[in-house]
Amino acid sequence: MSIETLKAEIARRYGTPSLVIDLDIVERNIARLQARCDAAGVANRPHIKTHKSPVLAAMQRDAGAKGIACQKLGEAEVMADAGHDDILITYNILGEEKTGRLGKLAGRVKMTVAADSAVVVDGLARAGEIAGRPLDVIVECDTGRARAGVVTPQEAVALAERIASHPSLAFAGFMLYPPENGVAETQSFLDTAKAGVRAAGLEPRVVSSGGTPNLPNLGKIEGVTEHRAGTCIFNDRMMMAAGVASLEDCALNLYATVVSRAAPGRGILDSGSKTLTSDSGGLDGFGLILEHPKARIAKFAEEHGFLDLTACEQPPEIGDVVRIIPNHVCVVVNMQDRYITVRGDEIIGELPVAARGKLR
Amino acid sequence: MSIETLKAEIARRYGTPSLVIDLDIVERNIARLQARCDAAGVANRPHIKTHKSPVLAAMQRDAGAKGIACQKLGEAEVMADAGHDDILITYNILGEEKTGRLGKLAGRVKMTVAADSAVVVDGLARAGEIAGRPLDVIVECDTGRARAGVVTPQEAVALAERIASHPSLAFAGFMLYPPENGVAETQSFLDTAKAGVRAAGLEPRVVSSGGTPNLPNLGKIEGVTEHRAGTCIFNDRMMMAAGVASLEDCALNLYATVVSRAAPGRGILDSGSKTLTSDSGGLDGFGLILEHPKARIAKFAEEHGFLDLTACEQPPEIGDVVRIIPNHVCVVVNMQDRYITVRGDEIIGELPVAARGKLR
Repeated sequence: MSIETLKAEIARRYGTPSLVIDLDIVERNIARLQARCDAAGVANRPHIKTHKSPVLAAMQRDAGAKGIACQKLGEAEVMADAGHDDILITYNILGEEKTGRLGKLAGRVKMTVAADSAVVVDGLARAGEIAGRPLDVIVECDTGRARAGVVTPQEAVALAERIASHPSLAFAGFMLYPPENGVAETQSFLDTAKAGVRAAGLEPRVVSSGGTPNLPNLGKIEGVTEHRAGTCIFNDRMMMAAGVASLEDCALNLYATVVSRAAPGRGILDSGSKTLTSDSGGLDGFGLILEHPKARIAKFAEEHGFLDLTACEQPPEIGDVVRIIPNHVCVVVNMQDRYITVRGDEIIGELPVAARGKLR
Repeated sequence: MSIETLKAEIARRYGTPSLVIDLDIVERNIARLQARCDAAGVANRPHIKTHKSPVLAAMQRDAGAKGIACQKLGEAEVMADAGHDDILITYNILGEEKTGRLGKLAGRVKMTVAADSAVVVDGLARAGEIAGRPLDVIVECDTGRARAGVVTPQEAVALAERIASHPSLAFAGFMLYPPENGVAETQSFLDTAKAGVRAAGLEPRVVSSGGTPNLPNLGKIEGVTEHRAGTCIFNDRMMMAAGVASLEDCALNLYATVVSRAAPGRGILDSGSKTLTSDSGGLDGFGLILEHPKARIAKFAEEHGFLDLTACEQPPEIGDVVRIIPNHVCVVVNMQDRYITVRGDEIIGELPVAARGKLR
C-alpha cells in the first residue's frame, strides 16, 4: 500500500479526524527510551498520561520498564484492571472519595503515591489502612518549576518523617521533576534532603525524576533511581522544537480532512480545538501538516481548524486527507476513544484509549 | 443543604474535577432563549455542540425549539438514536464514510446539511440516494467571519442551482453565522442571494442564523427564519465578557479541589488543560473561581491548574473544593463523560454527555 492508499483507506474505513499511530515507530521509541535508561543505570517507569493505553504500557513493560507512572487515580485503576501491578501516582490524592479508591487499589497492586503536604499525607493514611498494608509515599520536591512539591529540603525531611509516623504509610523516597536547566539545583536539593532523612533514620529507596525534555539529563543527577518519561513514546512538534525528537521519531499523526476552501489562501480542517486543543506549546501554529509544511494552522473554532495557505505553492484541496503532527500529543490523545494502528503504510487495527477521560 | 454541604457531598460521592449543572438555571436559560426567539418571530434551533446531551436537547424541544443543530455527524447520530427527528448539521460533510452514514441517517429522520462548495454538494448527492428521498441542503454563506461559507451572493446562487440539479438533493435555503457587528453586510448578502435564487426559480425555505453572542441581533436581519444558539444553555465567562450573560445565568460549574499550596501566593488545582482546556477566549486567566474571585488561574499543565493567589486576602487551603465558571464551557463539557445535576443546593443525579467524543 502506498501512503496515499493508506490515507484513503483510513478515511474510508474510519473517517477523520482520527488518531493514527505507527507501531514500528512506537516500538523504536520504546526501545530507545529503555536503552537510554539502561545506559544511565536508571529504572524506566514510563508515564502513561501520554498514551492512556494498557496495551502500550504492556509493550513498555515487556521492553524492560519497571512499573508505570500515572497522573490520576482513575488512570491507575484502568491500568491495574489490565494487569499492571507496579504503579506510581505522581499526584496529590485528596479527599475521602479518592483515598477510599486508592486504598482498594493499594490492596491489590503495588502502589506508590506522591505527596507534598501534611494534609495530603494525613489523608493517605486512610488509604493505607484500607489497603491493609503500608502504602508507599514519596515526597514531591520542587527544584524550580513552582508547580507542586515542597520547596526546601527541610520541608522534604519533615514530610518524610510525617509519612513514617503513620503506621499505615511507608516513606519510600523523593519525586523530582527538574527544570531542564536545573541539574545543579536539583542535585543540591536532593543531597540535602537525603542526608536529612538519613539523619532521621529513614532511607529513600526511590528517587524518581521525570520528563521527556529531561532525557538529555539522564544520569546527571546522582542518586536518581528511576525516570518517568511520557511524551517520547509518540513525540510531537514541541519535542521536535525542544530538540529531543526528529520528524522520523513522531509516531502519531492526526488524520484530518480539508472541508472548505472558501477563498484563495485559506481553508478549513475538520479538526478544531475539540480535536487538536488550544495548547500552543509556545509554538507558532497548532500543528505541522506533513503534506503541506508551509500551511499554517492559524487558529481554531471548536470543530474548525483555520488554515493560512498563503505560503503554499500547491495548497490542499477540498476533500484532501492530511496528516498532522500535533504541537502537544498528550492533550490530543485525551480527546479520542481509539487509535488506528499502522506499520508503515499497512493498517493493523484499532486500540482503545482506555484511560481517556479518567480525570478523577 | 447549604452550598458548603453540597460541595462536600459532591466531592464525597463523585470526586473532582466534576461538571455540575444547575437545572433551575438551565431551564431558565432554555425558556429565555425560546422567549427571545418567539418575540423575534424566529424559530429556535438550539445548537447541541455545547451540551451534547439528548436529554437537555429534549428539554429545549419541549420548551418550543423546532429541531436542533449539530456540528458533527456523530453528534447527529446520537441525537437521532435518542428520538430527535429534525436535525441540521452545520458543517460540510465529506468523504464516502460520512456520506454513507449521513444517507442512512437521512433515511430515518429529517436531516438538513450545510455545504459551501461544489465538491461537498456533489458528495452529498450520494447521501440523498442512500436516504431514498431528497436530502435538504442549505448553502453556508460567509458574511465576514472568513471561516467556512461562500463569500459572494453569486457563489451562493450558483451553489443553490447545483444543489437543485441533483435529483437526490433539495435546495433548502441559506445558513449564516454573522459577525456580531455585521448585520448590514449580512442583510445585503442575503437579499442579493435570495433574489438570485428566486430568479433561478428556487425558494429559500430556511434562512438560519447562529451564535449566542448574536442574540442581541435577533430579529434585525430580515428573512431569517431560525436561529442556532448553543452556549446560552449554560453560559460562561466569555459570554459574561461579551455582555450577553450575567453571573446568575451561568448554569455550569466545574468543581475542583485545591491539591497543593506549596508556597505562599500560589497553589495547584486538580484541573489542568485536560479539564479546563487552554481556550483562553481572549480573557485573562482560565476561569472564575466563585469562592475566590481574586484568584487567577494563571496557566496549566495537563492535570495542574496553576493558581496565582497573591491578590487573595483569604486564599483557599489544601483540600478546599471550589466552583469554577470556565472561560469556554463547550470545550470543557467535551472532556467529560457525565454531568452531576443539581437544583440550587440539592443533588438531583447524573446525566451522560452522550455525544462527547463524537468528532467524526
